[in-house]
Amino acid sequence: MALAYSTERILEILSNDCETVGAYEGSILGIASLSEAEPGDLSFLGNPKYRAALADSKASVLLVPKDYDEAPKSGQLYLKLENPSFALALICRDIEATLLPKPPVGIHPSAVVEADAEVSPEACIGAFCYIASGAKVGAAVLESYVSVGRSAVIGDEAYLFSRVSVGDYCQIGERNRLMSGCVIGSDGYGYEYLDGAHQRVPQIGNVVTDADVDIGANSTIDRARFGSTQIGGGTKVDNQVQIAHNVRVGRHCLIVAQVGISGSTILGDGVVVGGQAGIAGHLKIGSGAMIAGGTAVVSDIEAQSKVRGYPAMPMMLFNRMAVLQRKLPDLFKRFDQLEKRVKSLPVESE
Amino acid sequence: MALAYSTERILEILSNDCETVGAYEGSILGIASLSEAEPGDLSFLGNPKYRAALADSKASVLLVPKDYDEAPKSGQLYLKLENPSFALALICRDIEATLLPKPPVGIHPSAVVEADAEVSPEACIGAFCYIASGAKVGAAVLESYVSVGRSAVIGDEAYLFSRVSVGDYCQIGERNRLMSGCVIGSDGYGYEYLDGAHQRVPQIGNVVTDADVDIGANSTIDRARFGSTQIGGGTKVDNQVQIAHNVRVGRHCLIVAQVGISGSTILGDGVVVGGQAGIAGHLKIGSGAMIAGGTAVVSDIEAQSKVRGYPAMPMMLFNRMAVLQRKLPDLFKRFDQLEKRVKSLPVESE
Amino acid sequence: MALAYSTERILEILSNDCETVGAYEGSILGIASLSEAEPGDLSFLGNPKYRAALADSKASVLLVPKDYDEAPKSGQLYLKLENPSFALALICRDIEATLLPKPPVGIHPSAVVEADAEVSPEACIGAFCYIASGAKVGAAVLESYVSVGRSAVIGDEAYLFSRVSVGDYCQIGERNRLMSGCVIGSDGYGYEYLDGAHQRVPQIGNVVTDADVDIGANSTIDRARFGSTQIGGGTKVDNQVQIAHNVRVGRHCLIVAQVGISGSTILGDGVVVGGQAGIAGHLKIGSGAMIAGGTAVVSDIEAQSKVRGYPAMPMMLFNRMAVLQRKLPDLFKRFDQLEKRVKSLPVESE
Repeated sequence: MALAYSTERILEILSNDCETVGAYEGSILGIASLSEAEPGDLSFLGNPKYRAALADSKASVLLVPKDYDEAPKSGQLYLKLENPSFALALICRDIEATLLPKPPVGIHPSAVVEADAEVSPEACIGAFCYIASGAKVGAAVLESYVSVGRSAVIGDEAYLFSRVSVGDYCQIGERNRLMSGCVIGSDGYGYEYLDGAHQRVPQIGNVVTDADVDIGANSTIDRARFGSTQIGGGTKVDNQVQIAHNVRVGRHCLIVAQVGISGSTILGDGVVVGGQAGIAGHLKIGSGAMIAGGTAVVSDIEAQSKVRGYPAMPMMLFNRMAVLQRKLPDLFKRFDQLEKRVKSLPVESE
Repeated sequence: MALAYSTERILEILSNDCETVGAYEGSILGIASLSEAEPGDLSFLGNPKYRAALADSKASVLLVPKDYDEAPKSGQLYLKLENPSFALALICRDIEATLLPKPPVGIHPSAVVEADAEVSPEACIGAFCYIASGAKVGAAVLESYVSVGRSAVIGDEAYLFSRVSVGDYCQIGERNRLMSGCVIGSDGYGYEYLDGAHQRVPQIGNVVTDADVDIGANSTIDRARFGSTQIGGGTKVDNQVQIAHNVRVGRHCLIVAQVGISGSTILGDGVVVGGQAGIAGHLKIGSGAMIAGGTAVVSDIEAQSKVRGYPAMPMMLFNRMAVLQRKLPDLFKRFDQLEKRVKSLPVESE
Repeated sequence: MALAYSTERILEILSNDCETVGAYEGSILGIASLSEAEPGDLSFLGNPKYRAALADSKASVLLVPKDYDEAPKSGQLYLKLENPSFALALICRDIEATLLPKPPVGIHPSAVVEADAEVSPEACIGAFCYIASGAKVGAAVLESYVSVGRSAVIGDEAYLFSRVSVGDYCQIGERNRLMSGCVIGSDGYGYEYLDGAHQRVPQIGNVVTDADVDIGANSTIDRARFGSTQIGGGTKVDNQVQIAHNVRVGRHCLIVAQVGISGSTILGDGVVVGGQAGIAGHLKIGSGAMIAGGTAVVSDIEAQSKVRGYPAMPMMLFNRMAVLQRKLPDLFKRFDQLEKRVKSLPVESE
């Protein structure tokens, strides 16, 4: 992924909010962290804890915060910015558009589109895509092997990577990004035990995602038993996340990799769920709650609270407990000694 | 997923076991829970704990237990039944058959079927399916992008959703439902460390599922090192479950999402494994055992026992421990005080 | 998977290092463990703990260690070897080559190869594969539904099973085995919170795997934010593993199923990570470290150390703690008694 990028182009992108100190004449050949950057690279100070590494960085162009007052080395250019991380994101977005251009509009000859499906003339339908009957696809990109089920809807500007499945009747919002291998609208896991066997409970609902939702690679979202499994606008779901039937996730949530959310649980807005956490069914997770990675949530969580543990408890209590647990061997020893000592004491009036 | 369903049709489905109280004249437009139902909706009392919500429900048609004696509101119809949940399942099955009809019999022109594969004339082979040489496909449905490996067998009435892979020599039982993205027959994870590297141990066995097995979306079941990885009849596996080589799962088990079962472990019949639980290799899990979500099983589990924890312990002990753990900070404090007090006591005969 | 294998063929494979005791005249019909083998089967003593089961095994041909001195039963053949497990692997490799022969060289007529992609004339490109523009595919096997992104590279002798996605610009090393459904090069999970929403941080790096890497079914490896997510030579990754952006995994590591590794974490060489373990971001895991299954790693781990727990602690401490935890109910009881007793004691000088 060789890069040859001019300083002028970067200044163009950041023009509104950028002060330059020093100078670099050549092309930008790559992007790297402060400590790994080589001459020719662009780097940045995103996290204050790396501030010390900035002066030693060999990068030729550096995005630094406005209040950074050291002078650049000879041949080095500092760009002083309000938010260097976001500035980098803007630059990367521009590079991305060059490296990974949007595929051409139109339907690949290998794709199959059923007669009564509606596909926007501005859609990009890649190799081996399958659009079932009654489906509506907006001005979206479907890379390859994307299947859109019967009467499913794909919003404008959605981007569906390779091998995404959108099940029958499911609705994908505008500007969603669905990563490779994710499955939207698999059957919910519902059975009734009867006559010595688990009888399947039909799952006749769908999945509805609002605008600006991202779903990670190989994640799975089950269709509702009836009604809809819902993902709120702006929510970002990482890879290998499992969201069960009738779950409702609020707006602007972050759900990190390998999380599992059981059936009918409701998440408020702005909830953050750390990697590999699990949430039992039929619970309410209040807005702004933070659930640490690996936590097992088995009861409702209040808004704005922070929990961790197996099972979940207030983060502060968990952290205290984690320290004390390591002292258990010592406590048991001390207890045995104390008990022995007390037993050796004279007892009053027996 | 608009619905327009008549009360007559519902009575038809439930005719054998249903008493009506009250009346509703219109069409049924949707299905919803008691508290969310609007006029026109069908609802039901499945879980006794929602009994209080029944009287307030706006639903027009309600499935209620036989012993529910309150009268419906005007314009409301109660259907009194032995098992309202199961009655709902029957109704949903009927709706499902309408919303999601079985695709037409035949082989889609885009599918590739190798010359010496055998496909039942009653099979539905969807777009972009691939049937390898020597494979036998019964009167099953293969939606799209389903690959059936060399000499693999798919039983009658099996339903393979989009993007299912059945590996070489694997055998899928009758009436199995394999959800999108699941992989049956990936290589087992087996290596021998030799000459400074992990040498792959060939995995020449297969996977065999009995009748009525469901496998969830993006779940993976590895082929055996030799012999077969086996899933017993009626067992239901949720999404993103990993079942390693040479595992044998008994009949009528429930394995919830994101569970991992390591190599050569044997599960009896009717075992329930909660979400995200992990089971180490070469273990025996007795019939009827219940393993709570998130549990890490590292030794054999007796039949009918209930375990939870990391590592697994009897459920009762875990629950007791979970309470006591939260009291650890307090215990440490009390202990320090007690120790101080004892040290201040006069000591007998030293 | 019926087998009919001659003893002669086995001796041929093992000729360099094998002593025979006893004799078996028939064909070998299967391979099974010592206790499950039937007459006609081949079996082996791989794990010393099964030594007692050897004398009772009904297997006709047995691979035993050189120091096993018991005599075979009549009609039974012992092959005495330095490493019976590895000998079995050699035999299985030979059987595998028969059961699962390499598909024929060439490009399946249903595959789509863009005009400026380079495909080796020795490559096997299966049904419905898609090779994007600028991609280079060596003498590799791509089974079916394999997509190779723009400017991606697939090394010689790599084997990509059904439904593997290799993203734009990613590089797959020689002799890699990528199992079905794995996704190499999905977007890293990176957002900046700005103006009330999570803004996507473009991910313009790639994934690079060295030689002899295996990636399990439905595993996901995210492309770097910039630079490369790296998997070192000889490392073996199991099913449903998630490796986030900018992670670097060393050489000859074993990463068992359902592990999650967060962004920018660095693993040394020979690290072993047990199933379902999670590793937080920006950490360093020293070479040779062993992380037990289910462990949650939240800080750096020293080389050669063994850790377990939630959060991770030294294995020995965890094991001690796991024992003591079960004694907590008893400790609390004993403590209450002791406290009562001490309070009943006369207090010195108050």
